[in-house]
Amino acid sequence: MIPRLTAAGCVHRRAQLLDTVSADLIVLANPRHVYYYSGFLASELTLAGWGPNYLILDREGRSILLVNNSAAGNAGFAFVDEVRSWTWYDAAKNPGKPVWREGGKALAGLLEELSSGMTALLLGIEAGVFPVRTAPDTARLVDISDTIYRQRRVKNEDELEIIRAIVAITGEGHARARKELRSGIREIELYGKIYESIIAAAGEPVNLFCDLISGPRTWAATGQPGSRIIEDGDPVILDLNPYVHGYRADYTSTIVLTEELPEVYQDLEKALHEAIVAGEAILRPGVRAGEVFEAVRAAIDAGGFGRFFDHHAGHGLGLGHPEAPFFVADSSEVLVAGDVVTLEPGAYGEGFGARIEHNYLIGETGPVRLSSHDTSFLI
Amino acid sequence: MIPRLTAAGCVHRRAQLLDTVSADLIVLANPRHVYYYSGFLASELTLAGWGPNYLILDREGRSILLVNNSAAGNAGFAFVDEVRSWTWYDAAKNPGKPVWREGGKALAGLLEELSSGMTALLLGIEAGVFPVRTAPDTARLVDISDTIYRQRRVKNEDELEIIRAIVAITGEGHARARKELRSGIREIELYGKIYESIIAAAGEPVNLFCDLISGPRTWAATGQPGSRIIEDGDPVILDLNPYVHGYRADYTSTIVLTEELPEVYQDLEKALHEAIVAGEAILRPGVRAGEVFEAVRAAIDAGGFGRFFDHHAGHGLGLGHPEAPFFVADSSEVLVAGDVVTLEPGAYGEGFGARIEHNYLIGETGPVRLSSHDTSFLI
Repeated sequence: MIPRLTAAGCVHRRAQLLDTVSADLIVLANPRHVYYYSGFLASELTLAGWGPNYLILDREGRSILLVNNSAAGNAGFAFVDEVRSWTWYDAAKNPGKPVWREGGKALAGLLEELSSGMTALLLGIEAGVFPVRTAPDTARLVDISDTIYRQRRVKNEDELEIIRAIVAITGEGHARARKELRSGIREIELYGKIYESIIAAAGEPVNLFCDLISGPRTWAATGQPGSRIIEDGDPVILDLNPYVHGYRADYTSTIVLTEELPEVYQDLEKALHEAIVAGEAILRPGVRAGEVFEAVRAAIDAGGFGRFFDHHAGHGLGLGHPEAPFFVADSSEVLVAGDVVTLEPGAYGEGFGARIEHNYLIGETGPVRLSSHDTSFLI
Repeated sequence: MIPRLTAAGCVHRRAQLLDTVSADLIVLANPRHVYYYSGFLASELTLAGWGPNYLILDREGRSILLVNNSAAGNAGFAFVDEVRSWTWYDAAKNPGKPVWREGGKALAGLLEELSSGMTALLLGIEAGVFPVRTAPDTARLVDISDTIYRQRRVKNEDELEIIRAIVAITGEGHARARKELRSGIREIELYGKIYESIIAAAGEPVNLFCDLISGPRTWAATGQPGSRIIEDGDPVILDLNPYVHGYRADYTSTIVLTEELPEVYQDLEKALHEAIVAGEAILRPGVRAGEVFEAVRAAIDAGGFGRFFDHHAGHGLGLGHPEAPFFVADSSEVLVAGDVVTLEPGAYGEGFGARIEHNYLIGETGPVRLSSHDTSFLI
């Protein structure tokens, strides 16, 4: 089973937020952030499930989770001081009303109650997410989403435990691919077998996002698995992103279905592995993300594939995808201990396509490589 | 491959909405409804992907899809008059800003532009979803979510094509379960094999929600597959809900892993099948949803399990889960042609648990059963 966020982690994150933001009340409305600060997930597999749910914090650190009754069971496992449940569908009468509007009304009612007696209300909200017409008339709104954006960079131990577990099950998927890949298998069949192994390793359902492309499809770098039949000599790019409990791993292998690599793939394998080494060499706190991109790019360029590398060299891993830091040319971000990142050098042209990718925790003195899959191009 | 919403369907739905709602501009902000009226999905597997995207309609029926540049590729396949793309992450510099706030700003800018010169603006919004601080100062807001809620009841032909295709792949999952179920298999392994067959039948990735429970776990009616090892004599409830392209099927079988059913399961199998027959007998336009519940309940009761049936007798299928109409005792909803519904009689007590379920389209004169899986308790 994949671990979950812990009470200690949630309490720590809330305290950090309250240290930074000065507001009478804070409303978390993005499901990712309700989860981040409380451990509450309406559904393990999607952030879109079961309607609107909110987390409200006050200055003293008191936390209230406001949920649709359908989610009350999961809310019972959240690390909050109080759960307030409102009913949309009670299995006795039809709701007859849109769930999102009713959730907004429930939030408005709770905010009215919590701010009663206050002459002024400074309300911390997430701009772009907080719904219109739910704040009390007296409220002055302050956007706290920059603070959350920054806080999410440094992963806490409970987040790391989840990510490590997802990295491990992802490895099972890559290993399965090397066993199953053969001439005549369809991309979607290979995906199904990889997925089966990831689920078995997780011991629970997982949502598997990926690029899985073969043959000439690899020239385009990305794509979902389709009905294409993989043939002898084909390259196959496997970029697996299993998602569960709000987090994901994200790493890639390229396999060429042949006994002996054609020259272009020999060169490419060497260039991409050298790019990984070059990136790893400078993954440490204080380094600018743009420098990481440059190190990876320079190695690919030295290998002769510079002009075929047209995407980022990696990015952060966490509750969103992609997320900070971004390994691109003009990135001003500076690595910090606790960042979890991916390095993903690749090159794609007329006649070839390949990418390899590893995941890392940025430690105090350098990177801890989390992934340990086989990245050689031959099985 | 699972079909997609069509241009004709999207144009029809937009025209229907504009016939009902009188507003200068309408903003769809719920990803389900952006999709419903435009065919745009940022991700096939989740509504939470890639940040805020909006659909704006004007009185003349002109449609503009406002998307984060990451989603611009998918937006190119949407059935709209214009796509406006704004950039959060350009793979050259780090975004440095929360994507949701930036999306809200992009929406505010577009609404300002579209309403320039208007002295008053009547703005149709979805309450509980439309973000604060994005409407122009001159706007008067009118909630249109009730209209959408009603409109979603009657499925159009493009929606039906998607649902029929998902019903078909769900059948492959149930068939696979009957092949794989044996003493010694873990619930999660069985889930993995079912999932593999559903993906192979779909020819593309699918998000599989389900209840998959065995043995004493069936007494609780619902639950995710876990590490439990299924043993001889165990009942297994398989309630499969594959989700793809915004829609899902939702139907159930119960299998008892034995050569001969114990008496309680003989009685239960008979009662639940009679409940399905009783429900089907009155599934037609004009019938109150509460009557359908009552018919199903009465049959279960006649079979001796009335006090062990403690959930709804079914519900609508579509973009949400569950959705109208609701087959519960006090449901005032009246069936209409074009409703897609599920009937799901079950009974759960100390020592037993079972449910069967079928999916239906409500035709002009009666139900069209969409699902055709084996619902006998013995393999």
